[in-house]
Amino acid sequence: MAAKMNPDLKKERDGASFDPEKIVNFLYGGPDRVRRRREVVSLALDDPDFQHEDLNFMSREQQYETQLKKSILVVQKQKELGLVSPEDMGNYNYNGVFKGMSGPFGLHTSMFLPTLRGQATAEQKAKWLKMAENYAIIGTYAQTEMGHGTFLRGLETTSTYDPQTQEFVLNTPTPTGTKWWPGCLGKTSNYCVLMAQLYIHGKSYGPHPFMVQIRSLQDHKPLPGVTVGDIGPKFGYAGNDNGFLRFDNVRIPRDNMLMKYSRVEPDGTYVKPPSSKLAYGTMVQVRSFIVSEASDSLAKAVTIAVRYSCVRRQSEMKPGHPEPQVLDYVTQQYKLFPYLAAAYAFMLAARSMIFVYFRSMEKIGRGDITVLPELHALSSGLKSLSSWVMNAGIEECRMACGGHGYSHASGIPSIYMEHTPAATYEGENTVLMLQTARYLMKSYNQSLQGEKLAGSVAYLSGVQPVPVAGRTRNVLDLNVLIQAFQHRAARLVHEAALQLKKERQTGKDQPDAWNAASVDLVKAAKAHSQYFVVKNFADRLTDPALDSAARAVLTRLCQLYALHDIVNSSGDFLEDGYLTGSDIRQARRHINALMAKLRPDAVALVDAFDFPDGILNSILGRYDGNVYQHLLEWAKASPLNKTDVHESYYKYLKPFLEANRAKL
Amino acid sequence: MAAKMNPDLKKERDGASFDPEKIVNFLYGGPDRVRRRREVVSLALDDPDFQHEDLNFMSREQQYETQLKKSILVVQKQKELGLVSPEDMGNYNYNGVFKGMSGPFGLHTSMFLPTLRGQATAEQKAKWLKMAENYAIIGTYAQTEMGHGTFLRGLETTSTYDPQTQEFVLNTPTPTGTKWWPGCLGKTSNYCVLMAQLYIHGKSYGPHPFMVQIRSLQDHKPLPGVTVGDIGPKFGYAGNDNGFLRFDNVRIPRDNMLMKYSRVEPDGTYVKPPSSKLAYGTMVQVRSFIVSEASDSLAKAVTIAVRYSCVRRQSEMKPGHPEPQVLDYVTQQYKLFPYLAAAYAFMLAARSMIFVYFRSMEKIGRGDITVLPELHALSSGLKSLSSWVMNAGIEECRMACGGHGYSHASGIPSIYMEHTPAATYEGENTVLMLQTARYLMKSYNQSLQGEKLAGSVAYLSGVQPVPVAGRTRNVLDLNVLIQAFQHRAARLVHEAALQLKKERQTGKDQPDAWNAASVDLVKAAKAHSQYFVVKNFADRLTDPALDSAARAVLTRLCQLYALHDIVNSSGDFLEDGYLTGSDIRQARRHINALMAKLRPDAVALVDAFDFPDGILNSILGRYDGNVYQHLLEWAKASPLNKTDVHESYYKYLKPFLEANRAKL
Repeated sequence: MAAKMNPDLKKERDGASFDPEKIVNFLYGGPDRVRRRREVVSLALDDPDFQHEDLNFMSREQQYETQLKKSILVVQKQKELGLVSPEDMGNYNYNGVFKGMSGPFGLHTSMFLPTLRGQATAEQKAKWLKMAENYAIIGTYAQTEMGHGTFLRGLETTSTYDPQTQEFVLNTPTPTGTKWWPGCLGKTSNYCVLMAQLYIHGKSYGPHPFMVQIRSLQDHKPLPGVTVGDIGPKFGYAGNDNGFLRFDNVRIPRDNMLMKYSRVEPDGTYVKPPSSKLAYGTMVQVRSFIVSEASDSLAKAVTIAVRYSCVRRQSEMKPGHPEPQVLDYVTQQYKLFPYLAAAYAFMLAARSMIFVYFRSMEKIGRGDITVLPELHALSSGLKSLSSWVMNAGIEECRMACGGHGYSHASGIPSIYMEHTPAATYEGENTVLMLQTARYLMKSYNQSLQGEKLAGSVAYLSGVQPVPVAGRTRNVLDLNVLIQAFQHRAARLVHEAALQLKKERQTGKDQPDAWNAASVDLVKAAKAHSQYFVVKNFADRLTDPALDSAARAVLTRLCQLYALHDIVNSSGDFLEDGYLTGSDIRQARRHINALMAKLRPDAVALVDAFDFPDGILNSILGRYDGNVYQHLLEWAKASPLNKTDVHESYYKYLKPFLEANRAKL
Repeated sequence: MAAKMNPDLKKERDGASFDPEKIVNFLYGGPDRVRRRREVVSLALDDPDFQHEDLNFMSREQQYETQLKKSILVVQKQKELGLVSPEDMGNYNYNGVFKGMSGPFGLHTSMFLPTLRGQATAEQKAKWLKMAENYAIIGTYAQTEMGHGTFLRGLETTSTYDPQTQEFVLNTPTPTGTKWWPGCLGKTSNYCVLMAQLYIHGKSYGPHPFMVQIRSLQDHKPLPGVTVGDIGPKFGYAGNDNGFLRFDNVRIPRDNMLMKYSRVEPDGTYVKPPSSKLAYGTMVQVRSFIVSEASDSLAKAVTIAVRYSCVRRQSEMKPGHPEPQVLDYVTQQYKLFPYLAAAYAFMLAARSMIFVYFRSMEKIGRGDITVLPELHALSSGLKSLSSWVMNAGIEECRMACGGHGYSHASGIPSIYMEHTPAATYEGENTVLMLQTARYLMKSYNQSLQGEKLAGSVAYLSGVQPVPVAGRTRNVLDLNVLIQAFQHRAARLVHEAALQLKKERQTGKDQPDAWNAASVDLVKAAKAHSQYFVVKNFADRLTDPALDSAARAVLTRLCQLYALHDIVNSSGDFLEDGYLTGSDIRQARRHINALMAKLRPDAVALVDAFDFPDGILNSILGRYDGNVYQHLLEWAKASPLNKTDVHESYYKYLKPFLEANRAKL
């Protein structure tokens, strides 16, 4: 029998103005896909083979071992269950079994297999792909080095072609050239795709991919010349053996270079790839997935904090009255509701981005790669913006849960530790924002030269960055809001371009000028990305999957998202007089009014993210709201409580206390 | 022989414009105290008894045990070494041995002993204080409950006086009344000061302190009726056994109520304390120390990030040139320098706050408690502002270190996990800001009624919150900056008061109006606190301990701190036209120029925080800059690398891989 729901949470759900299921269907692609998603996730969550004590109770070694065991089970069970679509597999494995956390086979599926599929020749695929797909070998993708991350051309690992033996000789010439960070490399993988600098006849050809066996298939020992291990404990990722790797004259056959694009002939002749831009496609896809990951992670933290804020009662607002639910404090709403809105905003942005990606891939498949730069700029900006907002938002949610947020019982520290790397991997956020800025500057200059811009930057040529003062605006009107974000983005792009020009005029060369203007450039790129997010949120409100009640509540969220950013960075809108002090004051009052309207719908809005308890893994965020009873149970099960008196008492405390007592 | 210093770091130090030792002396109270501080810290850092493997390599139980062992050694060694002043003991224990991290005797020294000293009668002191001071008993302070934190009156644990036996009967009536979070309670303490609701003859008298034995002195088992344990793993604080505690009809003698202030006579007569405001004094002191803790923790993270940013080289700024130090990127400076400035700003604010506290205590000692409300408001605001800035700043520093920031080798995750609770404990930040706001509203209303305000709120009556438009200002001038911060604070206090009034006029009662205006009230309180920080920073620049070179560089930091906040929250200054768009553009250019000037001094400025490597506990932040060699060494020493092939291979991976190969 199901436990009784906490009466406060029940009241919240009964009082919602809309049916959360309508929004679940809107977010996850309709009733059929929602049903399937729930089915598949449940297959994982309900399977007794995947139950284990809380990972937070385990040492790192125990966590690694637990995740390894589950990774193997996943491979076997996915086959048994006939889960083959990427969507089903993602829901089963990443969401259901791993709850969004990192495991020892993660890089095998996310990088090793796709790289083989994308960059190996037919012959090479025949040789390795079947082995890899059937887990006869486990691989990873070894690119990042201790001293080299974002800047691919800086890699130091060398692969030198020896035409005599028709082999490549792999070497790590320096400490900084040590491969460092590749997931699943330290203890799990026996193969890797290695990115190394190709040298032929003393000439460098830049980084290329090589298939390299690193551990014996007999006893898993590192092969001769290979030094491999784990890089040590991290903030999170305890279940992932991120590794290091060094080579000392390790020889691999010529055929081990992945040669679908570039080739090296037996005599050492180098054959160039047809286009170097194609690799961008994968990057765009990966970054779109990160936007999705960021919004999911933020949504989880918000779910926990909003539910707990309705269960938690605190202080005496009025003498003699009961302690109010903490979500009734406007300051608490002001912490959580803008991030609730942001989680929706970025979920919808991610879905649109992925849609645009697939549509563009069709074009690219027909040989039209003109869309790539725009796609790359947009996905880079969104990846950075969403992961920055996620990081700040998860921590805001944790602290909004007071002391209990800090306990692993809340589940929020794990979400943070596990997902905060999204701001760094697949392109460090600031570096990516500057890539977006580069595209914006190029587009802006094209528009100055009379070219008509299309797509996500069309507004740069359409809008006059000149304020029209004195107008009264209704800043609740979505069109007014979109216009304001468009204006800000256009103005900041204009200002950054101006700044860049000024820096050049002081005598700086282009790289120095770019560096000097880079704070403005990042600001412009952020504003461009934010404009996309706001406009996309508003556009999606017309989706026919929404009934009027659901549309009304999402419209409020969209308004709140936009107004909160306007108030929070009001200077951006005031500086050129586009908005007035009175507009900003209006915006603040609207925010208060929107929060009051959203208050009764808050729990239903987080319910609509549709995270079952098994995925949230949080005592505070339990669907039934029975927080306090379960906190004590959880604590009692933790390792320090296995005995009433800890063994350290006998070793240290007892002799100390007794000696001190004797001296009195 | 000392290892050779990384040449990039050496160059930085050689190129500094000032002598860091001058600033060390300025920050830490002159050469004699600096010498003593270093001596005492070294006694701890160089002691082989305190060496152990990295805590990040250990399970939580091992960490607790290690910290317990060290806690005992500290007590013994402090006695042997004759360290008796609070300053020496703090430097030895908190800084040197524990490096700012939490240990199992923390609450004994920080809360149990002070409470006995402050709230026990002479008789009670004779009975317990000697035992406690000599560690014949270990105690903690048990106040917070699972369902009750900030709101003291909400506590549920009861202490009911039984005049028949002249005993108090302790009970925990509900799950939410379970004591939860007290440090060192779970496994270590055998006594506690318990805060419980006093009941006499069925009447409630509110929370009072009681001395309660919870574990046997013979075998450390919980006493009959006592349920005690550890609350389970947390984000940080692994070395601290934060505990839970429940009572079931536990009887303690009447004398166990700490009766220096309130008393219960044998017949049950309750005698009131003379003044209820005195407890504020301790709170003010504790909050001042938190400002100091926050600035120290931020300074540590900044030290690590700035040094590493000079060692790390990344990307190709100009074709064919070597990769630049990442601190040469203006975006990196923009991430780190404002927090470098903030660490200084809050260090100086903390020192001033503690100075004001001691001066005020003299007044209070003479019976003048009029300064308490102002002191309380100021310390609450600074505690909140500094811990918020610390939290954001540490994470910014971590992410500014790229991937390696995420490794425990950076030391930054531990600093964050260990100090982020400062935003929650000793008064949740938003609650505290609202207390500051309450004082500001009271003062503002007094000034409206013609009273002249003094001290930190004097400006509320002096300044006209009306902008003077069209003036040209030199926003580098410290007086102009101080005026701007003063104006913003005064204006926001005025606006919050106005908002409060408007909410009342719509028919809301006072509590509802307060809640409705609370976002504005927090904003006003923040601005007030920030004004103090900026003004204090500027005031301290005249300190004669500084020579002109040191003064020049700190002046730049002070300007940067102020201008960065102005640019970052420019709307606050633009909204009423106090600053113009052109002022803000000027401010942005000044920031760029200041950062360029500070760039060559950055390493010397973090060196001047004077954290030895032993305290930083960071591979990235090493004084000698030899980061990469030591990263590999550190990783090799970690548990997963004890063997080349992890045992999980034999248990799980080997059978899996072999079965898969057999099927091919």
